[in-house]
Amino acid sequence: MRYATRIGPGGFNVLPTPLRRMKIALAQINTIVGDLAGNCQKIRDYAQQAARAGADLVVFPELCVTGYPPQDLLDSALFLDQTEQAMADLCRALPPDVGVIVGAPARNPGRVGKRLFNGAFLYENGVEVGAVYKRLLPTYDVFDEHRYFESGPPQEVVVWRGLRLGLHVCEDMWNNEDTAPYHLYAANPVDALAAQGIDLFVNISASPFSVGKHARRTRVVEGICREHGVPFVLVNQVGANTEIIFDGDSRVHGADGKMLACAPSFEEALVFWDTGDAAPCADPEHDDIADLHDALVLGIRDYMHKSPFFTKALVGLSGGIDSALTAALAAAALGPDRVVGVTMPSRYSSQGSVSDSRALAQNLGIHFQEIPIAPAVEAFDAMLEPAFEGTTPGVAEENIQSRARGVTLMALSNKFGYLLLSTGNKSELAVGYCTLYGDTNGGLAVLSDVFKTDVYRLSHYINDKAGRALIPENTITKPPSAELRPDQKDEDSLPPYSLLDRILQLYVEEHRGLDAIIRATNAGPDLVRDILDKVDRNEYKRRQVPPGLRVTMKAFGTGRRMPIVMQWQRESAQRVRQEAGDEGIEAG
Amino acid sequence: MRYATRIGPGGFNVLPTPLRRMKIALAQINTIVGDLAGNCQKIRDYAQQAARAGADLVVFPELCVTGYPPQDLLDSALFLDQTEQAMADLCRALPPDVGVIVGAPARNPGRVGKRLFNGAFLYENGVEVGAVYKRLLPTYDVFDEHRYFESGPPQEVVVWRGLRLGLHVCEDMWNNEDTAPYHLYAANPVDALAAQGIDLFVNISASPFSVGKHARRTRVVEGICREHGVPFVLVNQVGANTEIIFDGDSRVHGADGKMLACAPSFEEALVFWDTGDAAPCADPEHDDIADLHDALVLGIRDYMHKSPFFTKALVGLSGGIDSALTAALAAAALGPDRVVGVTMPSRYSSQGSVSDSRALAQNLGIHFQEIPIAPAVEAFDAMLEPAFEGTTPGVAEENIQSRARGVTLMALSNKFGYLLLSTGNKSELAVGYCTLYGDTNGGLAVLSDVFKTDVYRLSHYINDKAGRALIPENTITKPPSAELRPDQKDEDSLPPYSLLDRILQLYVEEHRGLDAIIRATNAGPDLVRDILDKVDRNEYKRRQVPPGLRVTMKAFGTGRRMPIVMQWQRESAQRVRQEAGDEGIEAG
Repeated sequence: MRYATRIGPGGFNVLPTPLRRMKIALAQINTIVGDLAGNCQKIRDYAQQAARAGADLVVFPELCVTGYPPQDLLDSALFLDQTEQAMADLCRALPPDVGVIVGAPARNPGRVGKRLFNGAFLYENGVEVGAVYKRLLPTYDVFDEHRYFESGPPQEVVVWRGLRLGLHVCEDMWNNEDTAPYHLYAANPVDALAAQGIDLFVNISASPFSVGKHARRTRVVEGICREHGVPFVLVNQVGANTEIIFDGDSRVHGADGKMLACAPSFEEALVFWDTGDAAPCADPEHDDIADLHDALVLGIRDYMHKSPFFTKALVGLSGGIDSALTAALAAAALGPDRVVGVTMPSRYSSQGSVSDSRALAQNLGIHFQEIPIAPAVEAFDAMLEPAFEGTTPGVAEENIQSRARGVTLMALSNKFGYLLLSTGNKSELAVGYCTLYGDTNGGLAVLSDVFKTDVYRLSHYINDKAGRALIPENTITKPPSAELRPDQKDEDSLPPYSLLDRILQLYVEEHRGLDAIIRATNAGPDLVRDILDKVDRNEYKRRQVPPGLRVTMKAFGTGRRMPIVMQWQRESAQRVRQEAGDEGIEAG
Repeated sequence: MRYATRIGPGGFNVLPTPLRRMKIALAQINTIVGDLAGNCQKIRDYAQQAARAGADLVVFPELCVTGYPPQDLLDSALFLDQTEQAMADLCRALPPDVGVIVGAPARNPGRVGKRLFNGAFLYENGVEVGAVYKRLLPTYDVFDEHRYFESGPPQEVVVWRGLRLGLHVCEDMWNNEDTAPYHLYAANPVDALAAQGIDLFVNISASPFSVGKHARRTRVVEGICREHGVPFVLVNQVGANTEIIFDGDSRVHGADGKMLACAPSFEEALVFWDTGDAAPCADPEHDDIADLHDALVLGIRDYMHKSPFFTKALVGLSGGIDSALTAALAAAALGPDRVVGVTMPSRYSSQGSVSDSRALAQNLGIHFQEIPIAPAVEAFDAMLEPAFEGTTPGVAEENIQSRARGVTLMALSNKFGYLLLSTGNKSELAVGYCTLYGDTNGGLAVLSDVFKTDVYRLSHYINDKAGRALIPENTITKPPSAELRPDQKDEDSLPPYSLLDRILQLYVEEHRGLDAIIRATNAGPDLVRDILDKVDRNEYKRRQVPPGLRVTMKAFGTGRRMPIVMQWQRESAQRVRQEAGDEGIEAG
């Protein structure tokens, strides 16, 4: 259906009128946070390319001028001055006779409130011809928008070349879809725009990826189109900025909700849609594991390429599956020649530790080095002998091995400008099954939001896609072990990963309580209690690990803000109750 | 003046009437985040003690039931259930015939908005007889209140035993005093309460310490009292929770603004005020350096005592002033018997490194060990020789030394349950003059918000107070050096600390730009540019350092959220401008 529904001033539906013919370009670009000049240059380039292809309107993502999320750069008066100047210059430098919608922070002219709005601006022939401000400001998980932005006033329709545009910003379309665990918004900007009578929704976004997001996005946009009988153009940022990965996935849906165009995920794209074209397109296939793979690859690539410091990526290879997967992802992201794998055997390393690592490096075509850590471990043991006299070897000694590896890797990183990728997965990080200043060392934690069970799935996916065992079969089938003491196996101290991951998902991602988790998993109460205690107790470790790529709705990292020094006891309520009942007790 | 101004329903002033006689107790308690049972027990104990002393009303701090800040514990349904249960039990368990005001999160019964309010509740004889919700929610610096809380409706006067109480929560009284750099609030809850006619303001707070806070607090409260002619009772939490230190500093001011009672800072207290007593008290003397000292001591003590894991604190002693000060503060916080100092000389350590450390340990009476790191450093050098062949020794080799010390300290920490205190100061951390996974290792960064110039002031203060050189004279007078290569001095790569600290203060704490800093300091543009670049470039290090005690308005830590991967160029605006002017260029 190629007609937009109009709602008259009195609120009555009037007959659909044909949508004015127009060619719209969706510019799904990858910006760099803070790089005003580079981002504006990219916007100009894409706008010119779109103009040459006959576009009437080019739509860019949310805050594309500053990159998203700019975080506390927004506290800098200088940065804001520069942003305003960059926008003024950009506006004049855009190609003529094309409408261009960009996202940028804008000063709040009001006397009170946060100093900025999160704005969407329509430029044409060197003039701003439309502007709206984001109303729904996400302030949960990784989002801190109310730290910087004031919620905008209800958006008015932007009337342009006879089209009534329902322009809004990211969260404005999500209303309560993703926010329900945290709060519900009172306003529904999309409804408010539709009520004014519009021909087309235009949403500019910086909407992060998490597994399953393509389908959630489709569901939300479809629902809006069907409810209001209006087509929808969504342009989302692509690219990773430190922890947060944006998948792009920009699209157009018709007034009946059907998808008419969709950009590829995880890469830049310029997609065109003619408003006269109502032919549905095929919904691009999305597979959770394939998306996860592509997201992690993009996360590594952008961390590396957007930082001016690094020559190659460095991975410590243990022979285990986490480091193997990390190396494989890095090779896919950067090319094998820009990846260095180092195996660092100790006396507790299995035979396979070195041979599997070497086989992996050969399969991937990455650089490979072997640096046994025995000299350092023996030196520390000797240095500490007087202090440790009479004690039983344990975690302290195990950690020395992990830290000797960490020092070795950082020495290579410092010497050669390598970006050290840490390899720990979400399951280990959750229960603290890692050594701070040892295997957690690095600039980027690639798998810190990937449960161990998904580490296996990803490894199989990579091998299946390659049609051969890039990740050696032995690495996949051997029982997981930290190899820090003789015959150590993960399962000696942890339940099977399938159960562990389910418990962790319920606790960390869904905030479920002890009883609920026991019911949902049928696991023993002592086991669940022990796992939950481990999660609580290791917050201090997670506070100091490198930023990790976020691929779920709740990663460790900036989206999780748990107190470190605290004494919450999951079963304390009962104790309080019992004590309160006993009025005789007084602690004086 | 012992009369409260009444404003009649019509808004006209009526004649002052005598304030009803009543004994009010200010319960300045130190709570533990998440410890519902312990906090409620403490509230009961203090309430009973106050009741025995004849108090009519006992006032506790903001969120005293949960401890402040509870952070993402507030996302847990179980935690909220437990909190409600704990409050119901507490309400019934409080002593009879006394009014008790406590702070706690409360569920927002509304259909929309954040799920909680930040509430103040008045309990009496097992019943809730009054409640208000915080209206001004700080969402800047370390504060994330809009992440959890909905802004409350305008507070209504709580009428209790004939008194009209202007009850409100923390930020509600600050309105725009501290928030101006970030935003201005539209509402002024204090004015709105006064307009209803009140006898007494009651503010419950979790208001963090920063240098100079006592005087700022006095100024704000005095101003409110004078404006409205109403006395003011302020009860603030005391104690440190991870990074944030609360100084207490609870007080009563009379209707004329004069201070009538004031609790000691940095310790628990129960202070009584009879509403009939209008005799001013002496304003407790506050000195910036003494406050800084006491705040850091409290910060160490609470981190240690509120965590169930640690037996002693551990400090690596270099012979330099930062580690000496850290050890002295730890000894003051925990007693010398619970502090272990370790000196770890290398071949580049000066003679004084060991002897000054030993003298310090003797002066303080702390435990002392010497563990030379040569074996580990030599082992790493040998292990890395093949990989490093043909390269020039530099930062990589220097960092190995620092990391060998870091591994040694962590081995002691892991073996004996020591809390490792890291010793780097704010100046070093700002410019990245520290080794990640080396000297930054630790559970708590004691001096990470203390500029080097204040490190000297604090050291002199400690020695002056002791009447002898607890911190050895040689440690204070020697030129600062990391001693990681021969004859290395800080001033080889950094300007004098007095200048460096001024530049950093302007940049980090006041968000000033390059030109403004050059003008304010008269420093050379290249020098300032270099310092600012160093600050920007080292965000990745600060992301991975331990939590540090916050003692200024802008510390590194959770209150500073800068992007890590980014490419802001302070002088990029000009480039943008030049390029935009040249329409001929096309990157196509």
